[in-house]
Amino acid sequence: MSPTPADTVRISLDEVHALCRDTLLGVGLAEPHALAIARSITRAQADECHSHGLYRLLGYVASVRSGKAARDVLPVLSRTTPVILRVDARRTFAPLAIEIGVPALVEAAKTYGIAALAIHDCYHFSALWADIEPAVDAGLAAWCFTIGQSCVAPAGGTRPLLGTNPIAFGWPGPKQAPFIFDFATSAAARGEIELKRRAGEPIPQGWAVGPDGAPTTDPAQALAGALLPFGGHKGSALSMMVELIAGPLIGDLTSRQAAAVENGDSGPPLGGELFIAIDPAVFGPATLDQRLAEADAVFAAARQQPGVRLPSERRYAARARSREGALVSAALLAELRTLSEPG
Amino acid sequence: MSPTPADTVRISLDEVHALCRDTLLGVGLAEPHALAIARSITRAQADECHSHGLYRLLGYVASVRSGKAARDVLPVLSRTTPVILRVDARRTFAPLAIEIGVPALVEAAKTYGIAALAIHDCYHFSALWADIEPAVDAGLAAWCFTIGQSCVAPAGGTRPLLGTNPIAFGWPGPKQAPFIFDFATSAAARGEIELKRRAGEPIPQGWAVGPDGAPTTDPAQALAGALLPFGGHKGSALSMMVELIAGPLIGDLTSRQAAAVENGDSGPPLGGELFIAIDPAVFGPATLDQRLAEADAVFAAARQQPGVRLPSERRYAARARSREGALVSAALLAELRTLSEPG
Repeated sequence: MSPTPADTVRISLDEVHALCRDTLLGVGLAEPHALAIARSITRAQADECHSHGLYRLLGYVASVRSGKAARDVLPVLSRTTPVILRVDARRTFAPLAIEIGVPALVEAAKTYGIAALAIHDCYHFSALWADIEPAVDAGLAAWCFTIGQSCVAPAGGTRPLLGTNPIAFGWPGPKQAPFIFDFATSAAARGEIELKRRAGEPIPQGWAVGPDGAPTTDPAQALAGALLPFGGHKGSALSMMVELIAGPLIGDLTSRQAAAVENGDSGPPLGGELFIAIDPAVFGPATLDQRLAEADAVFAAARQQPGVRLPSERRYAARARSREGALVSAALLAELRTLSEPG
Repeated sequence: MSPTPADTVRISLDEVHALCRDTLLGVGLAEPHALAIARSITRAQADECHSHGLYRLLGYVASVRSGKAARDVLPVLSRTTPVILRVDARRTFAPLAIEIGVPALVEAAKTYGIAALAIHDCYHFSALWADIEPAVDAGLAAWCFTIGQSCVAPAGGTRPLLGTNPIAFGWPGPKQAPFIFDFATSAAARGEIELKRRAGEPIPQGWAVGPDGAPTTDPAQALAGALLPFGGHKGSALSMMVELIAGPLIGDLTSRQAAAVENGDSGPPLGGELFIAIDPAVFGPATLDQRLAEADAVFAAARQQPGVRLPSERRYAARARSREGALVSAALLAELRTLSEPG
C-alpha cells in the first residue's frame, strides 16, 4: 500500500460508492439519482480531487433534506435538431442528467462531426473534468461550461456579478490519460479562500477585493467583498463568455439569478451546463492517427521542459494509486458515517 | 472633424480600401484576394486596430513578392457533413477563404443549430474579431481560434513551443455593438515587445524569459527567449487547447511546424483556423428576445461598475469616429504609397 498522510485512511472505491449510495438512499433520494451521484463522487475521490469527492456528499444530503432538489423525478432528454440536445433535469441533481445526455451527445457528434448538449434546470456540484471525460474517452474533443453564484467582479470592477464560471476542455489522446483541463475563471475558488480563513492565513494579492472595493489579503474581507477573475481582462472576458453561453444561450440562469434563488443550504446552486463536442475523425487531410500523433508530439515537447506539468497528470497518478483504495480524510469519513441517520 | 493626434492624418475609408486594393493589384495579386484583403484591412483601420490595419499591408506585399503566398488560385469550399465545413485556402491569404467560408458556416448553424468551419492551409494576418463579426452580426454566438509561430513557453517552461494562439468569441447582442473579444493567450503580443525594444523601455515582469530561461524585463532578451502565457497555468492550458484544435484537429500545422516552414519575409505565417458557431434561436425555454435581454442585463450590470469596460467598446467608439475618416500614421501612409512601385 502507498503510505497514507496523517489523519487520512484508505478505503476501497467500492466502499466510497456504497457510502454515497446508502447515505443518499437513506435520506430519501431515488435510486437512479443516488447511483449517478455515487459514481460521480467516487471518480473524483479516486482522482484525489477532494473538493469534489466525498466532501460533496454533505452538500447533496443538505439539499435533499432542505427540499431544494427533487428526489424522485427523472431528467428528460429531447432534441431540437439532430445536433442540439437538451436534458431537462427538472430541478434534480446534475449527475443523472449528464449520464443521460452525454451518450446522446457522443452519438450525435460521431454522426455529424459536432454537437451541443444543454443540461437545463439542474443542481450542479460535480467536477467538469469528470463531466466531459466519457465524451473524451469516446474519442471526441469536448468542452463544458457552467455558471456559479455571483461572487466575482468583472475586471476593473469591485462588486460580485459573475460566478466562478469554470471551463473544461478535453482532447482524446493519448490513450488512458487524455489531456483534460478544468479551471475556475476566478483567480481562486471560493473554497480556497474559505480554507485560508479557517487556517488564519492571508490570501495572495490579486485574488479579491473587500466590501469597500479595495484590494485585500484578508480572506474574511474577500468573502464579504468580491473575488477577481484570473488573468485580468482576458480571464474576465472568458468568465463573461461562460456567463452568456451557460446562461442566456441555453435559457438558463445567470450567476446573479442563481444567487437570488439560493436557499443557503450549502448544497449545489441551480443553473445550466453547456457541452460542445467535436469528432476529430471527420477532419482531414491527414489520417486521424497521424493527427493524434502530431498532438502527442506537442505534449512530448512540453514535458521535455523541466517545470512543465500537463493538466490532469496529477489526477491520473492519483487514479493509479487509488486502485488500492482511495485516500479519505478520517474526520470527514467519521462525519459522513453519521449522515444517513435521521436529520 | 475629431482632432487628429500628432503625426497622424485622417483619410476616408474609401481611400484606405483603394490604397490596399491598388497596392496589392500592383504587386500582382489576383483581384478577388486583393479586394478581400482590402476589406479586412479597412475594417481594422476603421476600428483603430492599428496592428491589423494598414500596417499589415507591408507584410501582405512582402509575402506576395517573396512568392510565399499563391497569387491567383481560389480557395475551395467543401463539406464533410452538413455541419462540418472546410475551406482549402491552397496557400493563399486567409481573408478570401474566410469570406467564402463564413456565410456557409452561418447557413449551416442557422439550419442545424451548431456548425464548425476549418480554414486550411492559409496565410492568416487578420484580426480574429473581424473574422467572426459577420457570423455574430447574423445572430450567432461564434468562436475562432488560430495558431501562430512558436514563441511562447508553456507555464513552468522556458523554451518556445506554442504560438501566441489567439481566441475570439462573440455574442450576438446588443445590436450595433455585439460583445466580441479577441486576445492572444500569451501575456503580451510579440509586437508589443518589439515596440518596447524600439522605445528602449523595459517590459513588465511576467511577460517573458530570456534565452537562459530566467525571467527578464529586457525586451531584446525576451525576443531571443520565450514569451509566457497570460494567467499562469490556466492561460497555458488555453494556449495548448488552441494549439490542438486549430492544428491537429483540423489537420493543419502546429506552431512549431509553422515556424519551421516560415521564410522570414515578415508576412503572415502558414496555418489553419477553426470557427465554431451556435444559433441561440434553437434553444429554449424562454424566447430568444427574453434570453438576449437577460444577457443585456449582465452587460448593463457590468457597465454600472466604475472601471469596467466591456471588450470591443473602444473599437466601436473608434468605428463611429472613423465615419469622417480613419486615423492613419503619416509616416506609414508615406511608406505605403511607395509600396506599389516595382520591388
